[in-house]
Amino acid sequence: MREEGVSYYLISSSDEHASEYVGDYDKTSLWLSGCSSDNVRILISQTKALLWTDGRYFISAAQELENSEYVLMKSGQTGVPSLCDYLDVSLKEGDCLAYDGRTFSYAEGLQYHNLAEKQGCELNNRFAPQDRLWIDRPNRASHPVIVLKEDLTGESYADKLSGVRAAMAAKGADQLILSKLDDIMWLLNIRGADIACNPVALSYFWLTDRGAFLFLQKSEITEELRTYAREQEITLEDYNETFEILSGRLADSAAKDPDSAMTGDQKPIKLMLDPRSSSDAMVSLAASCLGAENLILAANPTEMMKAVKNSVEISHIREVYLQDSVAVCRFIAYVKKHAREGNLTELSAARYLEGLRAELPGYLDLSFETICAYNANAAMAHYAPTKDDCARIEGRGFLLVDSGGQYLGGTTDVTRTICLGELTDSMREDFTTVAVSNLRLLFARFMEDCSGMVLDAIAREPLWERHKNFNHGTGHGIGYILNVHEGPQVIRWRDRIPEDRTSFVPGMITSDEPGMYIEGQYGIRTESITLCVEDCVNEYGRFLCFEPLTYVPIDLEGLKPEQMDASDIDKLNRYHKMVWEKISPFLKGEDLEWLKQATGPVCA
Amino acid sequence: MREEGVSYYLISSSDEHASEYVGDYDKTSLWLSGCSSDNVRILISQTKALLWTDGRYFISAAQELENSEYVLMKSGQTGVPSLCDYLDVSLKEGDCLAYDGRTFSYAEGLQYHNLAEKQGCELNNRFAPQDRLWIDRPNRASHPVIVLKEDLTGESYADKLSGVRAAMAAKGADQLILSKLDDIMWLLNIRGADIACNPVALSYFWLTDRGAFLFLQKSEITEELRTYAREQEITLEDYNETFEILSGRLADSAAKDPDSAMTGDQKPIKLMLDPRSSSDAMVSLAASCLGAENLILAANPTEMMKAVKNSVEISHIREVYLQDSVAVCRFIAYVKKHAREGNLTELSAARYLEGLRAELPGYLDLSFETICAYNANAAMAHYAPTKDDCARIEGRGFLLVDSGGQYLGGTTDVTRTICLGELTDSMREDFTTVAVSNLRLLFARFMEDCSGMVLDAIAREPLWERHKNFNHGTGHGIGYILNVHEGPQVIRWRDRIPEDRTSFVPGMITSDEPGMYIEGQYGIRTESITLCVEDCVNEYGRFLCFEPLTYVPIDLEGLKPEQMDASDIDKLNRYHKMVWEKISPFLKGEDLEWLKQATGPVCA
Repeated sequence: MREEGVSYYLISSSDEHASEYVGDYDKTSLWLSGCSSDNVRILISQTKALLWTDGRYFISAAQELENSEYVLMKSGQTGVPSLCDYLDVSLKEGDCLAYDGRTFSYAEGLQYHNLAEKQGCELNNRFAPQDRLWIDRPNRASHPVIVLKEDLTGESYADKLSGVRAAMAAKGADQLILSKLDDIMWLLNIRGADIACNPVALSYFWLTDRGAFLFLQKSEITEELRTYAREQEITLEDYNETFEILSGRLADSAAKDPDSAMTGDQKPIKLMLDPRSSSDAMVSLAASCLGAENLILAANPTEMMKAVKNSVEISHIREVYLQDSVAVCRFIAYVKKHAREGNLTELSAARYLEGLRAELPGYLDLSFETICAYNANAAMAHYAPTKDDCARIEGRGFLLVDSGGQYLGGTTDVTRTICLGELTDSMREDFTTVAVSNLRLLFARFMEDCSGMVLDAIAREPLWERHKNFNHGTGHGIGYILNVHEGPQVIRWRDRIPEDRTSFVPGMITSDEPGMYIEGQYGIRTESITLCVEDCVNEYGRFLCFEPLTYVPIDLEGLKPEQMDASDIDKLNRYHKMVWEKISPFLKGEDLEWLKQATGPVCA
Repeated sequence: MREEGVSYYLISSSDEHASEYVGDYDKTSLWLSGCSSDNVRILISQTKALLWTDGRYFISAAQELENSEYVLMKSGQTGVPSLCDYLDVSLKEGDCLAYDGRTFSYAEGLQYHNLAEKQGCELNNRFAPQDRLWIDRPNRASHPVIVLKEDLTGESYADKLSGVRAAMAAKGADQLILSKLDDIMWLLNIRGADIACNPVALSYFWLTDRGAFLFLQKSEITEELRTYAREQEITLEDYNETFEILSGRLADSAAKDPDSAMTGDQKPIKLMLDPRSSSDAMVSLAASCLGAENLILAANPTEMMKAVKNSVEISHIREVYLQDSVAVCRFIAYVKKHAREGNLTELSAARYLEGLRAELPGYLDLSFETICAYNANAAMAHYAPTKDDCARIEGRGFLLVDSGGQYLGGTTDVTRTICLGELTDSMREDFTTVAVSNLRLLFARFMEDCSGMVLDAIAREPLWERHKNFNHGTGHGIGYILNVHEGPQVIRWRDRIPEDRTSFVPGMITSDEPGMYIEGQYGIRTESITLCVEDCVNEYGRFLCFEPLTYVPIDLEGLKPEQMDASDIDKLNRYHKMVWEKISPFLKGEDLEWLKQATGPVCA
């Protein structure tokens, strides 16, 4: 920093593609700080090192940063300034704020540009000391890319492409650069394995009115892919040369557009980029080649198309969720039976569940690291056991298990909190409140045009009623054989970004996962995945509702029916009746016996 | 239009101050079309006349426009283009779009400017044929302005002014022009009577670093006001010369700022204006005097200060609402007793209620025209009976009464739907659903930072659950001895404008008024007014809730307890217990007897 005259150095936990989860090569923030959280921002000056992360990681980050120089900044907590607010008061005229523009989105970088300008500071967005100083940096992951057949995707690349071109035309765009990995995978009907649990390949996609260019690491290109690319008229380029190639060709396409040369009418090339997933570096490159005034900064047209699943995808998803639910049911029956013997640990339980999933047809991988957290460990919303740090499961309290799989047919995610013997009254109160919250949302009816903010209120009301809350959103979108967190819809009661106000549309897959976390004691979360469907159309308009995809009992041992309204008990019983009908054909013996009890009707 | 080459003439129902309700002088849209709705936009071409209004007025506007040339455009209905969308497809190159820039806000005018520019049209924002053609136009209203003492306002003009100056400084503004009438009244602790039911005086306020200027019609200035203005160092100017005076002085202040002349450092004057309440004409004037780059277009700093009531205001409001509730209770007892005799009409009932209010201490006026609507008439959300058009009240169905008063001590608003004998099962179902909706919101607990969108969901869920809806917001802010509709907070499930996302803050007064409207049959609305207060602070943060200000029973004859959850019945009984405790000391005889029955506990 001193060598390059940098006063403040900013580090992000993301990669060139604004990915939420990244490969080891891109874990600069972990290398620097030892903090393994996703969604980290680090700010380093000559005297201070500050690390911001969100509510999911407050407890684990505090443990990891103990005895380090880092100060943990808990985003969103009262009295904790945001990174921007902090910079706003700290930056002084003449300071230099520096970061690696490849690892920040353009939208985020713009905030720093504006702050620096306001304070009369220099901005250096090419500062990447990790490239030099990180001695034992792992290589970039590189795995062969596979091509999905149309019986899995339900829509060909060509059909998707014409939808994308129509959306581009509506915005007046001639060209498009996609940086977001899952958008590229979805559009091209391909999948990779470069980020653990996320079946994506490191890639860029460039679409012009003359051709389509897919940038991949050479080692990832199989013969199958080469053939497919030829058939689909996709030119394959080297991922490692993306910036060099684009810089030459973008400038080229701007200079001599054949059409305009012929007519003499030199219309500039308009290029579309998503400011949230295109890196600061990529937008800078595009602006320098084409002129900033010719960039159309707008959401990727693929985003909404990908979020609204088609009927082929939906029928695969229903089947995959059914089988995944069967595995989770068998797992719960197993844990219930063996927990009291004292031979289970968080890690062995997680491995057992992973084994059950691995036996299912089409299994590829986990969709995220299994969270199997016993009592106090579950108060950390994103805790995962390791060999060195793993609790023994005993016959009392809660075991929270949040897990999912990647299958050729869908991506699953489910959380159940398993009750093991002794529970205090307040544990049962909290468990019941979370169950009611989950069920209210699961059975909600709502009007078309309704945003996740409205839906969050429906889920959160039973908690607020008891002066409780949980420090994360109630729901996120889920990909199809893709990332377990997918936009644009979310269920949150406060806006972070305008996209948080996306209206729900039939075909969207979203989680319903309220929770409650008591630090040092226990954590509860009940998560079912839902499909948004049309409920009815009448004189008031169109009503939507959710179809459950997850069929796993909510543990009756944790419930206090006397705390529940009759209509909530009715919802619980309706859900459990569905679970019995869907799952019982796949179970037998003790598992079936357990399911019968676990889904039996509850009386007020 | 032909004389001046105008292709499209746009008329608004508003005045120079973006008022929701206007004086007779400003009712150009009524004069032109015969439509009495507020929130109207008219578009006239050589061949067509179109009139847009919102859901509150669909039925009444359709009646008023029957047999006219006007086509009613129901804003927000599926398939009905918005005015902007309509203009976007209709405007052709070379057309001229014209309107009176005094009667459109700058924010709205900007949309037309942009549309005209996009289509290559001319824009004329000084087209005001009403000034010439409206022969029997009424004069501008002009009533003496009164000064409120600090025992009513709780905060002096000087103290409010220093808050305003601090807010201006934070935005870098040297000067401020207020156009919004209730903001001016609030800041100066004065009241007028120029708009029926809205105790405001037609006025402008200009604040510079050297002085404060209040523009009023000369006939409104009393000796009391003159003395007050002298004490407070407010210069009084003539309202009718506002534009001339400002145009001279703004240009002047820009040219020779004494400070900057001395130092030689010519810093431009920065002027703050609210784009939503400053007219297109006012902003044009300011831009021409100071340069558009020196205008700071931002919300009036008075808006939030006015919305959050101080403790003196709150104690007056509590007392006024109590007395107003007593009047409404006596009214309901009277209607219940006399409806079956067949001598009551909507109008005579409304007059009776107005008489009860007029007897209360500090009574000034109604806060809006009383809505007293029997059965089918109540399906029009904003119906008001007139001598010529008024139903006889008989002993069956619903009488919806929405009314309020202006008092020295507060502005009230309350709706109750009175059950008169025979009700069908579905009438009782709907009535119960609306009651549950009202009670859920009234007893809601919610976290600080929560917007009206989240609160709307809590109120609307019981309706959506039954596939029902109502076509208006659930709540609006209310002024203090001011307008019955006051921003910025609202309770709506869909955004219209970004301000709709204002977070709730203790001290805000807001209505809670779900409803249900069955065209041709009946309308139901239950409206109580609430004060936002702190509920508790715990490890999750700060929880807020509502204190009811309205204490009037919800008619038990309309309720189906068997449709209600136990927790909703509990809310009903808790509310009615409060009503009994608050109101019974003020009633006697038959009224007291009625209240006892009307607030008795309901069993599940």
